[in-house]
Amino acid sequence: MSTSRQGAREKRTGRRPGASGTREAILAAAKRQFAEFGYDRAPLRAIAAEAGVDQKLIAHFFGSKQQLFVAAAGLPLNPAEVLPTILAGDRATLGDRLAGFLVSFLEQPELHQRVTGVVRAAASEPAVALMLREFLVGEVVAPVADLLGTDDAHFRANLVGSQIVGLVMARYVVALEPLASMPPAAVAAAVAPTLERYLVGQLAPAAR
Amino acid sequence: MSTSRQGAREKRTGRRPGASGTREAILAAAKRQFAEFGYDRAPLRAIAAEAGVDQKLIAHFFGSKQQLFVAAAGLPLNPAEVLPTILAGDRATLGDRLAGFLVSFLEQPELHQRVTGVVRAAASEPAVALMLREFLVGEVVAPVADLLGTDDAHFRANLVGSQIVGLVMARYVVALEPLASMPPAAVAAAVAPTLERYLVGQLAPAAR
Repeated sequence: MSTSRQGAREKRTGRRPGASGTREAILAAAKRQFAEFGYDRAPLRAIAAEAGVDQKLIAHFFGSKQQLFVAAAGLPLNPAEVLPTILAGDRATLGDRLAGFLVSFLEQPELHQRVTGVVRAAASEPAVALMLREFLVGEVVAPVADLLGTDDAHFRANLVGSQIVGLVMARYVVALEPLASMPPAAVAAAVAPTLERYLVGQLAPAAR
Repeated sequence: MSTSRQGAREKRTGRRPGASGTREAILAAAKRQFAEFGYDRAPLRAIAAEAGVDQKLIAHFFGSKQQLFVAAAGLPLNPAEVLPTILAGDRATLGDRLAGFLVSFLEQPELHQRVTGVVRAAASEPAVALMLREFLVGEVVAPVADLLGTDDAHFRANLVGSQIVGLVMARYVVALEPLASMPPAAVAAAVAPTLERYLVGQLAPAAR
C-alpha cells in the first residue's frame, strides 16, 4: 500500500531541473524499487530507467548500490563502512568499542531520530523489513562474519543486531525509564559485554 | 490519528445484546482510553462510563486494570503473572529459565504473531508506545525490581526488556537469517547468559 502511495507521490517530482532534481529522482526511484522488490532484486539498471537517467549518474551521485540504499532507506550512516574499523582492533575491547560508538552516535538527536525512523518503518512496513533484511544480511552480516571468520559468525552478527535494535526500541522508541535517561557511558558499559560475547565470546555452554 | 479511527470503528458496536457485547464494549473503551491517556491516566471509572456499563462489570469480565490492559493491548500473556514464577527459582539458572520460556513461548505461531503485532504497534504508534511504557514500567519493571531487590534493579529490568524486544524484532519481524531459522534451544542458549547478567550479574566493570 505505502509502496504505491510513495510511487504516486514521487512521480510528481518528474521534471529534473538540474543536479538536485536528478539526485532526487534517483532517490525516489530507488525507494520505490527497494520497497517493492527488496534490496537484492532491484537492479541499478531498473532504478535508473524508472528515474529516467543514465545508470552512470547513480554512480556519480551515490557511488555503489549499497550507498544508494543507505541514502534511500534514510540510514544515518553506512554500517558496512563503520564496522570494519571497529572490528579491526583488539578483540578484548571489541564490545566496548562497538557499544561506545553506538551509544554516543545515537546520543545526537538528529541521528537517533533517523535510526528510530528506520526501526519504526521496519516494524510496521513488511516491505521495509524485507529490504532491510536483504541489505543487512548481504552488506552487514556477511562482511562482519568474514571479519570474525568463525563458523557461527552469521548467527553472532544477528545476535549483535538483536541487542542493538532492542536498545534503540527500549531507550528511544518506547523510552523505558530509567534506561531512557541513563548517561550514555552507563548504557554502553552495561551493553558492551553482551556485544563482546555475541561477537567473539562463548555463545552457549556446550551446545548439543 | 489511529485513536480516533479506532474510536469511530468501535462505536459501531454500541449495542450490547449480552455478555459478549458488554465485554467487547469494555474492551473497545479500554483500547481507546489507554491509547489516548496512557495506562496510568485512564481510570476504570472512565472506561466503564465510555462503555456505558457499571464499573463492577470490568472486574467481572477482566479482573484487574492490569488484566484489562493485557486484553486491550492484545498481549498474549500477562508478564506480571509469569515473571514472579520464573524469577523465584535458583538465580544461577535464571537466564536459562527466562530465555527458555520466552523462546519456546514465541515458537507458537499464534503467540508470536500477537507479540510481533504489539511490537509493531509500539514502534509505529506513539500512543501505543506511551501506554506500553506506562504499563511495563508500573506493572513489569517495578515488580521485577522488587523481586531483584537491588539498587539498579529498574535499569536491569529495562536491559532485559531491550534484549527481549530486540530478539522479537530480529527473529520474527525483520527475520534475519540464520537467527530466524535457528532451533529455539540454540537461540535460548545464546541469549540466556545475557538475560542472566542483566538480571543478577555484574552490569559494568567498576562503574564511575
